[in-house]
Amino acid sequence: MDESIHSQPFAAGERVLLKDAGGRRSYLVELIAGRTFHTHDGVIKHDAVIGRSEGEAVETHLRKTLIALRPTLVQRMMKVKRKTQIIYPKDAARIALELSVGPGSRVVEMGSGSGSLTTLLATLVRPSGRVYSFDRSAEFQAVARENIERASLGDWVTFSILEAGGSFALRDVDGVVLDLPEPWLAVKPAFDSLRPGGVLASIIPNAEQLKRLYLDAEESGFVELCAMEILERKILVRRQEGVRPADRMVGFTGYLFFGQRF
Amino acid sequence: MDESIHSQPFAAGERVLLKDAGGRRSYLVELIAGRTFHTHDGVIKHDAVIGRSEGEAVETHLRKTLIALRPTLVQRMMKVKRKTQIIYPKDAARIALELSVGPGSRVVEMGSGSGSLTTLLATLVRPSGRVYSFDRSAEFQAVARENIERASLGDWVTFSILEAGGSFALRDVDGVVLDLPEPWLAVKPAFDSLRPGGVLASIIPNAEQLKRLYLDAEESGFVELCAMEILERKILVRRQEGVRPADRMVGFTGYLFFGQRF
Amino acid sequence: MDESIHSQPFAAGERVLLKDAGGRRSYLVELIAGRTFHTHDGVIKHDAVIGRSEGEAVETHLRKTLIALRPTLVQRMMKVKRKTQIIYPKDAARIALELSVGPGSRVVEMGSGSGSLTTLLATLVRPSGRVYSFDRSAEFQAVARENIERASLGDWVTFSILEAGGSFALRDVDGVVLDLPEPWLAVKPAFDSLRPGGVLASIIPNAEQLKRLYLDAEESGFVELCAMEILERKILVRRQEGVRPADRMVGFTGYLFFGQRF
Amino acid sequence: MDESIHSQPFAAGERVLLKDAGGRRSYLVELIAGRTFHTHDGVIKHDAVIGRSEGEAVETHLRKTLIALRPTLVQRMMKVKRKTQIIYPKDAARIALELSVGPGSRVVEMGSGSGSLTTLLATLVRPSGRVYSFDRSAEFQAVARENIERASLGDWVTFSILEAGGSFALRDVDGVVLDLPEPWLAVKPAFDSLRPGGVLASIIPNAEQLKRLYLDAEESGFVELCAMEILERKILVRRQEGVRPADRMVGFTGYLFFGQRF
Repeated sequence: MDESIHSQPFAAGERVLLKDAGGRRSYLVELIAGRTFHTHDGVIKHDAVIGRSEGEAVETHLRKTLIALRPTLVQRMMKVKRKTQIIYPKDAARIALELSVGPGSRVVEMGSGSGSLTTLLATLVRPSGRVYSFDRSAEFQAVARENIERASLGDWVTFSILEAGGSFALRDVDGVVLDLPEPWLAVKPAFDSLRPGGVLASIIPNAEQLKRLYLDAEESGFVELCAMEILERKILVRRQEGVRPADRMVGFTGYLFFGQRF
Repeated sequence: MDESIHSQPFAAGERVLLKDAGGRRSYLVELIAGRTFHTHDGVIKHDAVIGRSEGEAVETHLRKTLIALRPTLVQRMMKVKRKTQIIYPKDAARIALELSVGPGSRVVEMGSGSGSLTTLLATLVRPSGRVYSFDRSAEFQAVARENIERASLGDWVTFSILEAGGSFALRDVDGVVLDLPEPWLAVKPAFDSLRPGGVLASIIPNAEQLKRLYLDAEESGFVELCAMEILERKILVRRQEGVRPADRMVGFTGYLFFGQRF
Repeated sequence: MDESIHSQPFAAGERVLLKDAGGRRSYLVELIAGRTFHTHDGVIKHDAVIGRSEGEAVETHLRKTLIALRPTLVQRMMKVKRKTQIIYPKDAARIALELSVGPGSRVVEMGSGSGSLTTLLATLVRPSGRVYSFDRSAEFQAVARENIERASLGDWVTFSILEAGGSFALRDVDGVVLDLPEPWLAVKPAFDSLRPGGVLASIIPNAEQLKRLYLDAEESGFVELCAMEILERKILVRRQEGVRPADRMVGFTGYLFFGQRF
Repeated sequence: MDESIHSQPFAAGERVLLKDAGGRRSYLVELIAGRTFHTHDGVIKHDAVIGRSEGEAVETHLRKTLIALRPTLVQRMMKVKRKTQIIYPKDAARIALELSVGPGSRVVEMGSGSGSLTTLLATLVRPSGRVYSFDRSAEFQAVARENIERASLGDWVTFSILEAGGSFALRDVDGVVLDLPEPWLAVKPAFDSLRPGGVLASIIPNAEQLKRLYLDAEESGFVELCAMEILERKILVRRQEGVRPADRMVGFTGYLFFGQRF
């Protein structure tokens, strides 16, 4: 369970976030006994972190202080080794919620991507649920698998290779997420493996693909169909200059689609 | 666990969603033995639903078919009995993610509102975590408590009455959510109860309040400060007319604020 | 010229905006000698307004004061008699700017709609330019024509009936605006009537139509192709409660398309 | 008038846009007899452009073809020599519309900026109107003046130096635009110089400034107060990949404020 993790000392093999005293710079490091790590504030020995508690200060060879923290869930999702575009927090959070993903959920994901969404889903389904992650490419899935292992979530994920359109060979799963170029190919397999009331989700880059998926899902018997996009605007807050939205923003990351098996 | 719930028959006391065959109309009903329920498609006896499995069809006295489903997490959040403005899914999902809420998490919520966000948090922290929900008003908190009991989540929530600014009397919690008019009053108590690396979140209606909270949190030693707003745009998909955003949208529900205890 | 209008007294036949003293309520009235007008603040005789100067106060029979003003350009655009959806200020303003519409411009509009955009274009092209407004429906165009006459802009607009796809029979116009269901039908006629460097604009409701127009325009030799949407968010400013975006907003009114004849 | 400009041959001193045959690359050149201009497609003699008509092809020394066009109004606004942040087309278009700026309008602008908005206003008020452009800095205003002269709009603009808060010494102007750090200082002078029904506009970077301006304008007797922000989303249209919003967008350029003198 999470609370035990945070009360335990850092162990070799874990990833730790080292922050400078002002909280401005941070470094994500995988702890390996005997190694050293070079920062802007000097060199740190991994052994100086292993065995310490979360929030404790460690010193560089320049006597600068760094604080050791475990990465947050968002940091673990965003800092995966990437071979593909990853799903942003703004979208991943909504997908997980619409699928009612929680402890005990059994969820299908097609494809595995770089394992960023998998990280979120696997975290939430513990201790008794499971994520079934399919991808057509063994090469890409290997990256996702490596990221999941590194996050110590391997016990809750089953990885398999599957062509788009192939059967998931599962029954009564709670949710299915489609993140692939031709999601309509997987609508029938999704319907067949979902329990009544289970939810299908997809993230889709273009309006034409969204339309095809939507109409195919409607024909396949999904109800409560819903398409949306989520926009995130950063707000700048400064004591003197004041409050206003940031100059630049991410304009688009994909359309979200949801439907419920009836 | 969730998967066992969905494989079990409907029981008296549960809430069930009845949908007509086309999936257009739906009714949320709390099942009570001996009662009847009136729909546009005719009258249903609760006893005709109790004991049935999810996804099964039940018949009205007019021989119309309704399908019985358990409500999704979003439906449970949105259909709470309300005495207050509730936090929308677009915002609740992001708050839960930024706080890394998952199985085992210990999370503080101030105030309880109508229990909508509480429903999400309590669902996610099971089976070994806990939500500590504080409110200054016993009257409002009674509504949240009733909603949580009705959702069978009472085992994972501790409700308490507390004035804004009072100590949570907790240590090493993973996250704190502030949804109250003067969130800056609770910044110090939040800092004191969070573990190192724990995250503070707040949803705030106005720019001035956001600024005050942001600057107070900065002074109190929070780092990784971040303010944003989340916008949701519904997309219409129609076979003939085509794809386009909906005419009307929710323009604003609040600023989100996040900071990490250091 | 505008400045002379505003220094002249109100004349019969003109439309005038009557506002209550607090500036909260306003009434748009067409002045006709001998008539009366009923307001929440009492009855006004039109003759009490005719001959007065802009900004002067007039009294109702209840001795309440109303201020008489000429409507602004936006008010004239929005208060046209409508038979169709009109183009919103956020979109109309951008279309006029992208077409470089100004004094002397010769601009084609297909179709006439209710004359709202025509009002803007005709206002801007004076004194030596001209708007050529085409529509396939004589019935709809009659409404636009009536609105333009009422706005005293008839000298700068030529109305004609034309099927989509028909030739505008004009040469070297500065801009063409297409507001019709199948704008691609008018791409070739637009190209033929534009001068080199002249700009084509369109407002289009759906993604599929936008795509067809865009690709057809590209094939016809238009360059600098650009598609966008314009969003307007009202901001609430209140002394006590503070500053924040409005709860509800218009989510979508159409995609804008622009291309330059080469 | 515009139409005569576009039917006249290019003259020395004018700025011309040279585009390659595909319409991809474009160069803005001020024509000076005897000079040469270097492009990716080879060298062009200015004398090969002077005397040609708009839309005619000219050849580089590499026998590549370039098309000569006059810049559009937006291009003239965006390509001013800059010493300051300029007002974007999305905002400038709306400001001009809300102020009902057209032929004959008399408009005040404080400050001059780099002359980008001045270019739009001066274009629209011709032939009988006038823009009064004030700035506290002679150095900045010199840039705006140079840009206006280069755009041949000097006959319609009066430049003056004025401290924020100083009187415009004008009466019955149709509109006032404030683009300065402390716009509330100019609310009283704006009120005094506007005709009844005239409109005050401002573009303001922060929520706090917006609030102060809004409340001061309300106290000074302005009505129909309105604050908004305008967002522009570029839409990508590709034959194969499909239609979707662009990945990145401008998130914020300023709040717009409008009020009407009563």
